[in-house]
Order: sequence, then structure tokens, then C-alpha cells
Amino acid sequence: MNDKKNPENGTGLGRRRFINSAALAGMSLGALACTDKSGTAVAPAASGAAPAPAAHTGGASNASHLKPGELDTYYGLWSGGHTGDMRVLGLPSGREITRIPCFVPDALVGWGHTNESKKVMGTRADGNLKFSVADTHHVHASYKDGNYDGRYAWINDKINSRIARIRLDYFVCDKITELPNVQGFHGIFPDKADPVDPKINYTTRVFCGAEFSIPLPNTVGSDDGKTYHSLFTCVDAESMDVRWQVLIDGNCDLTATSYDGKLAATNQYNTEMGVHYEDMMSAERDACLFFNIARIEEAVKAGKFKTYGDSKVPVVDGTRDANKDAKTALTAYVSVPKNPHGVNASPDAKYFICAGKLSPTGTVIELAKVLDYFDGKLESADKAIVAEVELGLGPLHTAFDGRGNAYTTLFLDSQVVKWNLDAAIKFHAGDKSAKYVVDRIDVQYQPGHLNASQSETRAADGKYLAVGCKFSKDRFLPVGPLHPENEQLIDISGDKMVLLADHPVRGEPHDFIIFKRELLSPKQVYNLDDFPNAVKDPKDSGVFRKGNKVEVRMTSQAPAFSLREFKLKKGDIVTLTLTNLDKIEDLTHGFAIPKHNINFIVNPQETASVTFVADKPGVYWCYCTHFCHALHLEMRTRMIVEA
Amino acid sequence: MNDKKNPENGTGLGRRRFINSAALAGMSLGALACTDKSGTAVAPAASGAAPAPAAHTGGASNASHLKPGELDTYYGLWSGGHTGDMRVLGLPSGREITRIPCFVPDALVGWGHTNESKKVMGTRADGNLKFSVADTHHVHASYKDGNYDGRYAWINDKINSRIARIRLDYFVCDKITELPNVQGFHGIFPDKADPVDPKINYTTRVFCGAEFSIPLPNTVGSDDGKTYHSLFTCVDAESMDVRWQVLIDGNCDLTATSYDGKLAATNQYNTEMGVHYEDMMSAERDACLFFNIARIEEAVKAGKFKTYGDSKVPVVDGTRDANKDAKTALTAYVSVPKNPHGVNASPDAKYFICAGKLSPTGTVIELAKVLDYFDGKLESADKAIVAEVELGLGPLHTAFDGRGNAYTTLFLDSQVVKWNLDAAIKFHAGDKSAKYVVDRIDVQYQPGHLNASQSETRAADGKYLAVGCKFSKDRFLPVGPLHPENEQLIDISGDKMVLLADHPVRGEPHDFIIFKRELLSPKQVYNLDDFPNAVKDPKDSGVFRKGNKVEVRMTSQAPAFSLREFKLKKGDIVTLTLTNLDKIEDLTHGFAIPKHNINFIVNPQETASVTFVADKPGVYWCYCTHFCHALHLEMRTRMIVEA
Repeated sequence: MNDKKNPENGTGLGRRRFINSAALAGMSLGALACTDKSGTAVAPAASGAAPAPAAHTGGASNASHLKPGELDTYYGLWSGGHTGDMRVLGLPSGREITRIPCFVPDALVGWGHTNESKKVMGTRADGNLKFSVADTHHVHASYKDGNYDGRYAWINDKINSRIARIRLDYFVCDKITELPNVQGFHGIFPDKADPVDPKINYTTRVFCGAEFSIPLPNTVGSDDGKTYHSLFTCVDAESMDVRWQVLIDGNCDLTATSYDGKLAATNQYNTEMGVHYEDMMSAERDACLFFNIARIEEAVKAGKFKTYGDSKVPVVDGTRDANKDAKTALTAYVSVPKNPHGVNASPDAKYFICAGKLSPTGTVIELAKVLDYFDGKLESADKAIVAEVELGLGPLHTAFDGRGNAYTTLFLDSQVVKWNLDAAIKFHAGDKSAKYVVDRIDVQYQPGHLNASQSETRAADGKYLAVGCKFSKDRFLPVGPLHPENEQLIDISGDKMVLLADHPVRGEPHDFIIFKRELLSPKQVYNLDDFPNAVKDPKDSGVFRKGNKVEVRMTSQAPAFSLREFKLKKGDIVTLTLTNLDKIEDLTHGFAIPKHNINFIVNPQETASVTFVADKPGVYWCYCTHFCHALHLEMRTRMIVEA
Repeated sequence: MNDKKNPENGTGLGRRRFINSAALAGMSLGALACTDKSGTAVAPAASGAAPAPAAHTGGASNASHLKPGELDTYYGLWSGGHTGDMRVLGLPSGREITRIPCFVPDALVGWGHTNESKKVMGTRADGNLKFSVADTHHVHASYKDGNYDGRYAWINDKINSRIARIRLDYFVCDKITELPNVQGFHGIFPDKADPVDPKINYTTRVFCGAEFSIPLPNTVGSDDGKTYHSLFTCVDAESMDVRWQVLIDGNCDLTATSYDGKLAATNQYNTEMGVHYEDMMSAERDACLFFNIARIEEAVKAGKFKTYGDSKVPVVDGTRDANKDAKTALTAYVSVPKNPHGVNASPDAKYFICAGKLSPTGTVIELAKVLDYFDGKLESADKAIVAEVELGLGPLHTAFDGRGNAYTTLFLDSQVVKWNLDAAIKFHAGDKSAKYVVDRIDVQYQPGHLNASQSETRAADGKYLAVGCKFSKDRFLPVGPLHPENEQLIDISGDKMVLLADHPVRGEPHDFIIFKRELLSPKQVYNLDDFPNAVKDPKDSGVFRKGNKVEVRMTSQAPAFSLREFKLKKGDIVTLTLTNLDKIEDLTHGFAIPKHNINFIVNPQETASVTFVADKPGVYWCYCTHFCHALHLEMRTRMIVEA
């Protein structure tokens, strides 16, 4: 394999050295890859004109434009980036069908305003939300038999190291867990099977990589980076409790899991443990770090763990020094070139691919060989590398078509490269006639994540590829200094990739998954009995007072609330509970109280409540904010607060 | 005109009576128009299958599908409904290019988190935001010479009676004003010229209609609806101060303005001043209420006004009793049938159209005749009505094509009806051979607002019609109980309307405007000098302490912040100011502080600041949340808080 022992002697050195200096040059030149002036040598696709779209649009076997009334054939679950929510798209149209609030309040549904959602989000002692910003990156869904099973999706918040679970029956967030002992929780991936019990052929764990290293516990403001550490975390898919953590050398970034449940991995871009960027990129090779899940859980069971600070979570030792003997090791560090970004599992269940970011290479690691290493059958973990081939400048993430091809984003080249895994392995083994690069397509511009339909399942179908381009520049009408990003849809059903459509999006989608619509069966109406505080009969409506603690209970049925008015006294602490007794699909009501900062919705058969202080005497027209009926404007009730 | 004096004897009685009872039936049946069981007689388009889309898609001269890289030809400014923001669309693609936060915090940009945005939004004494929910309905932009001039747009918040102004150079909100003395601020429209000074041929006022009636001042919890009042409000377009208000009989709803600046109007659906819905719909006719702007401003100047409570805003008397003499009247009440919803100005500047909602009629009011009324030349204000014709069930809003045709949404029929104004006037005058209905098209389902390209300007071009359908039902992949709404795009360039596309949207767009892209010239990079707190040179970075009040000042230039770390002491009250010195278009940085609930962005050459308490000792990796560079992941700074 190239560059392993002595990277100075490997192929591709010129390009790698070049990127290294280019990346540094970027520091003085501003965004290297996005300046028209400095970019000519480094990022020709970005600095020149885009290729004429017409040349790319002929001959597609897939189309993205649906006729009115036609349904999409795929769901897309998209990270909302620093909007802090999850987006749900229909594909191939690219239409955003809904957004699911989780980490950040949402004024439309009342997320972060109702008592029920505040309980999920978490509050401080004063009742206010603990956090109201977030930075979501990666969305992944629960598996069964190597395909999505439509139960759950998970999403990370990098700012506050939280993981949220989305129920895919109702498309709502039902649990949020804050990870202890870590900062910069970034990569996330559910397991696909249990490493030990073959009957558990579905997701029961979610793995979380933390990017930033900190003192343990993080209670002293130490500036000595040598005392900082990163942890890899396992969360229980059902309870959402943190099961265990692994102390490691270096940091975590993205995360991947094997189909057999035995392995999880994270790529590491800062094995140097630097605290300044030039230190983070000083080594020529970093790593893809593998975790032996069964052994870790045995160690936890055997009590071989520590805890840090107030956290009760068991932390096992996955550092290099503690894991020198492969036969008992919890971890294996496989080296990959310079500051890798991205680790992805191929749908044939054989390989993990790491892309080099500051190296122009993709590294193919064979999972059977990693297991051999853990069995003591491999001289070194690096022997699990079966290919390391040049792909282009700034390779980041990889998707798959189920026909043996990989698709990798090239950030600096502003391209997607399609390459064949078998050919790459042959080339790496010495067959220099093996042409592993199959196709390249320019994208607009600077792509980060990409994903193909069903790519991260055993049912990868090779139809559509979505590419999250970080810069849109001139691709949409100008809307001021904050540009949208550009999500492009590419037809990968043929030999040549064909660009189908540009879709603008507010920053910053990062990662996403695309799967067949048949895999989900969402429910359209809630079950009244699922809400313990439901007002099941309009006759149960009323104002119930205990001192200044007041319960207002009412129902909604278009076009009226069950209480036509209700009276309060100034200073009352009011909990208002509203049940929507309408049963018809799509018949949602809203409830706003002017000047009291209250608005929320109740979907058919849903119950929600809010608590507030009636601190201002006067008349307040509470009204339905969600269009429901010809008499929607007239659907009101008066809150009368007496002095 | 039909039904004016004695509605029982007019034409269309059968249908009107029918709708009245149907609307009441809806109260027990749930959403009348959206139940498959009850809807057969009332809303056939909603209860039956949609017409085959293919039948509608042939022969369109306009297309909605752009090739990759093609730019839209129109901007759309869309209300975000109870998401509380403004959406910016490109048309005909229907792509959402950005969302502009105004009334509600936005975690992506840090709106409601930065000191600069909090100042615009308004805070309580404790520094927290006064409001974090909103319900936006109507977006309208500033005019010059009867067309949009690209300076400003305005949008309302119905929940808290706020009006926000959006600068259309940078696409940001720069001012928010809370209206005094009113509740349920709904309709909004800028004037198009000064009523007196012909040199002022551009917008200087914005008119605001308030829907809910309340005691004046609203400081006593009176339940006696007879003491409640609504006001019509004028806001200064530049200062955003409230200039004056008008006390009226009945309520306000939507708002329209004349091209000559002399008249504004609001439709009134509750002239009964009822507090329960059956009272609000008891009268057979309500009104379109006209305001004589010049006379109102003369009255204010002459000191003929009151004030209420703490408000200093002059309030003139526009009630019927005080305005019986047309020659001096400030207001004119023109009657229109039952609970009208919508008032729209035709692009030929001649007419306002009111739709009946609970009457199947559209009423055409000639503005020259309203001016005649104010001049004492018309026997009664109702004589200004030049047509009142049946359109279909549940007519709401009207758009125009600049070729003499109007397009009105029929909520209950789930249709758009195209009708000719001249033919309607002839029919109303007695020519029963005049066929005023030109075309009808089914929409999916229950349309509220609609608008055509350039419809509300003198440059109406009759190309595209967007229709905001309140229910989407089966038109998109299911996403749980909360359905998207359906914004449909219709080609109106030919004789027959042609449905082009369905676009899902989270509730609830309400109103929108569509105009040619040439009318806007947004700026892509800020001016450093526009920010008084800018850190103009990285050398000016640092930590500046006065006791426990600490200023942290730094700059960003990809891929680094000017401070590589900064030290604080536990308990410090920190104001952190960040200037983005990158000058390249689209090169935005973010700044997040883990566990401190801080994230915001700085666009090229922008400065923003946040204030927080460093209450937890430890190391906090502040990082760039907005993708900027190949070394974006490495773009960090350490906040070290010493115990």
C-alpha cells in the first residue's frame, strides 16, 4: 500500500505536499477554495464557469420533475445544520415536506413552549430551556436485516453534545440525551445487529464520536492540551441512556458500523491531539479507529472501567498503550492519510472507506481483516488496508450504488468521482492496468456530504445521488450576504452521472439518508389515550382553581373551542390544556394567546399544555393559528384577566 | 346591485342561505370542507378524487422546471405563518432560497441571540426577549410609480400586533414596532403615493388593520363586548413609528391601498361586534371600510384626536356616528355581503374587490365613486359598488393578470375562478348575456390566499399564479399528523389556467407577493463601517477586562479566529464581539460556544456580538458552525474559564 511506512516515498506525494501547502496558503488568502483569484490552480471547477447544464441533462433515465399530484418515491431525512432540526424531503422532487423540531424551539408547533416538549428538551431550575441553539450534522435511522425498519432516526447536536431520537411513526422527537464527558459530538451511527446474539438483527445501540478533546472531568480551565481526551460513546437505542464510553488517543470525527454488529469505527483527523490547526495537520497519517463492541461490553460487565466527575457512565480504556495485545484489544488504530474526513460502510458489508481530506486518497479497509487482527491473525492493523488510491483533491465522504462502485466528494476539485472498489483493490495490489476511476462530474460548488438512495443499507439501489454543496455562489437568485447552500441531485442509474437539479437550502444540511417510501408507514391521527392529560369530553372543560394555581382545560372542534371565554385573576399561575377532538386527518388547530408569548398546535386527537403567569389585566383573544375551517377566523375564545 | 337593500330578495339567496347553514353544520361535523363524509354536497372538489394531473399539464406556455444552473425569473416573498419569519422563493421553480428571521429567534443566524438582533426584537427588563412566537400573515413591499422599488418589505405578527420591516438590500429585518391599543393585527399594506404631494410617488406609510376588538385602554378584564373597539393604524415607513390610529365601528381584516394615495380600506367581517362566532355572522351584509387619508392627517394636525392609556399615538374618530356628513367624513362604510374576507386593488387602479366568504359573491367597488362620495356627489357610499356577482362557494382573495381578469380563490369549492371585471360590471348593470366567468380550475385543497406575478402593481403581467392551499391531504408523502400545506403554481398566460406544480410547505404561508427579479439588487457583502463595534484589524483582538465585565474582541479569516484561545474567570459577564474580515461573497463564518447556548454567524464584513455569563469553569472549544474552508473543522478557539 502507498505511503504507509514512509509517506515521503509513496505515490501522490506531489499532490499531497501541494494540498498541504495549499491549505496553509488558504489561511492567508481567505477561503482557498472559494476565491476566484487564488483558486485557479487548486480548484478549477470552482473558479471557472460551470459546464453547460444542457450537456449533462440529456439521456437521464431518472427524472426529478413530478407532475402535480404525483408522489415522490423516496424519503430523505436531512440534517438541518445550525437550524437545529431535521428536514424531511421527498425525492426525486427535492421538495421539503416538513421539518421536525428537536433541539431548538419551533414557533409553529410550540416546540419548546408546551410543557410536553419542554420535558423532552430539558429545562433549567427556573423552568427555562437549558439550550435553544444546536448544530445538527448527521441523521441515521434504525436498521433491521441490514435495511431501515422505520422505527427511529437519530440526529446529533454538536454544540451541546446532545443526541435526539425521532419517532418515524409520528415524525416527532421523543427523547434527547446529553452525552457526559465529551465536547463536539459529531459522528453518529446506529448498529445494525448485535455482535453476540444473532437473533438481535436490528438496531439496539447508537454510537457517537466526539471531536473536541477536553480535561476529564472538565471542571478546571487547564490550557495544557496534553491533558485533554476524547471519548467514543454508546447510547441505548430504546432507553436513550448512555451505556458506556471508551477513552481513546486522538479524536473522533465521523462514525460507521459493520453489518454484523461486531465493529464500529471513527475516523480521526487529529491523532496529534493538537490544539492549534497547524498542529492538527502536522502528521502525514492519522487513523481510522475500530472498536470491538463485544469485548468492550465484556470489559464493562467485568467492571474494568472508570467514571469521571458526576457521570456514572462506565468508561473503558481504548488508548493505544492499553490495547497492544490484539487478542484482547478493545480498539484497533488503522492508519490513513492526513486528516481524513468520512468513514462509510459499503453495502456488500465488506469494507469501510476513509477519505483523505488533506490527502487525495481513498483508503479501503477490509472488515474481515480487522476481525483477523482482533483474532491475532494479522501482523498489524494497517494490514487490513486493501486499497489506497488517488481520487482527486479534498476527498471527504463516500456513497455506494450497490453495483460495486463508490462515489466520493472532492471538496477542492468541486467534483464527485465514481470509482470501482474491485478495480481499486486490484490496482493497489499491483495491477496498474486496473482503471478504478469510472467517471467524474463537476458539482457547484465545494461538496461536503453526499449520499445515494439506500446507500447505507444492503439494499443500495444506485438510482439517485444527492450532493450537499457548501457554496452556491451564482446558482440561485441573490438574497443578500447569506447565501443558500446547494443540494444537487444526480442520476447514477447509468454509466455516466447526470446532474438533474439544484436545490437551495439554508445552511447547513451536512448529512442525510435517502430510502424507499415503502419502508415507512406514518400515522396521520394521534391516539387520544396516549395523552394522560387529555380532555376527552368537551363537558370536562372548565377553569379549576387551587389558590392562584389554575387549570384551564378545553377542547377544540372546528370552528370552536369548548370554552367561549374563561376568567382569570391577575397573578394566576395558569396551566392550560387543550385536546383536539377533531379526528379528521390534516385537521390541526393552533392556540395563541396575545401578549403572553404562547402559541402551539394540536394535531387530530393530540393534547398539549402550556404554563404561564396571567400577569396583565385585560381581555386577550386567544385564537386558532392553524387554518382549519371556513370559520377559522372566527374560532376564538376570550381570556379575561381581572385586576 | 343584488341584495343590497334587502338581501332576502336578491339573487343567490339559495346558495347564501345554504352556506350559512353549511358553515353552522360544520361546527358539529368538524371541518366541513375537509371531511370526506360530510363534504359531498358542499365541497365536491375536496371529497372526490383530484382531476388527473395529466389533463392539466399539456400546452402550458410557461414551465416551472429549471435546468441546473438556470436562475428563476421572479422573486416571491412569502409569509412564514406561525413560524414567524419571511420566506424568499424563486419562481417559477418554487424553490425556497432563504428565510428571513424577524419576530422569532433563529438558531442558524443567531437572531434573538446576538445583541444586535435582540435590540431589534425587543427585550424585557431581565434582558430576555419580550416575545419568541409570532403569526405572520401578509407580506407587502414598498412602491414607487405603482411598482415595487426594492427598498423594503413589511410583515405582520398577529399574535402580538407587531410589524417588522425587512431591508431588501441585505434581506434582513431592521425594525420592529409593536402597535398600541389593538389586538389581532392582521391586514397590512403600504401606501403607493402621498394623498396630497404628487412629488411623493412612493411609499411613506404602512396601514395596519386590527381584527380583534378590545377595551380601550385594555387594562380591565371587562367581558362586555359592547365596550370593545378596533383601530386602524398608520405606521411611518421610514421611522417605523406609529403616526396615527382611527377608532372605527366593527373590526378590520385585510387592507388595501389606492394607487393615488388617497384611499386605504379594510374589509370588515364582524360589523356586528359579536364576541361569539354565531353573533359575528348574524348580519347579511358587513362592510368594506374606506379611509380618507388626507382628511385623517388634517384632523390629526388640527388636534382632533384622543389618546388611550400610556400610548401617545393620536386616535381620530372614524365611527359611523361621527362621520355622517360625507363632505367632512374621515371614513366611508361600503356594505358588502356576509363576512367578507379579502380586499384587493386592481392593477388598473380603478377598483377594490371584496370577496364574500359566507356569500358566494365578489363585490367590485369603483374608487372614483368612493372619492365622489367623499366629495358629497354620491347619495350613499354603497353606490360605489359597480358589480356584485356570484363566483362560487367561499370566495376569499383576488389576484389580477393585467388583462382585465380577476382570479378569486373559492375555499369551499376548492377552486380558482377566473372572471372578467368589465363583463361582471356589465352583468351587474343588467346585461345578463355578459359572461363574466371565464374559467375555473380545481386546486388541492381549500385555497386561501393567491397572488399572480406583479398582480398588486400597475405592471401586472399575467404569467404565474400561486395558490396557497390550506390542506394538502394526499398530495405528498405522509409525514405524520402535521401535514404540509400545498402551494400550487398555475400558468395564467393563456385562456385556460394550467396547473404546473405542487409545492409542500410547513404551515402557514397565508399571503405572498411575486415580482420580477430585475426589481431587486441585493448586496452580497456588508460594509465594515456600518458596524460601530467592528474589530477592523486582527491586531485589535484581545480580552479587555473591567472588574468582572469582560470584552472579548476578535476577527475571523478562514480558517482561523484571531484569538487562538482566551481566558476568563468564573462569573465574568462577557461581551464577545466578532468581525468577519473575509471579503469574499458567500464566505460566512459561525461561532458556537458549547454549553453556553451561543451560536451566531457573521457574513462577509459583518460584525455581531453576544453577551453571556461564564458560569462554568472548564475548557470550551468555540468553533465555526458555518462551512467556510477545507480546514473548517479545524477552525476553533479555546475559551478557558478558570475556577
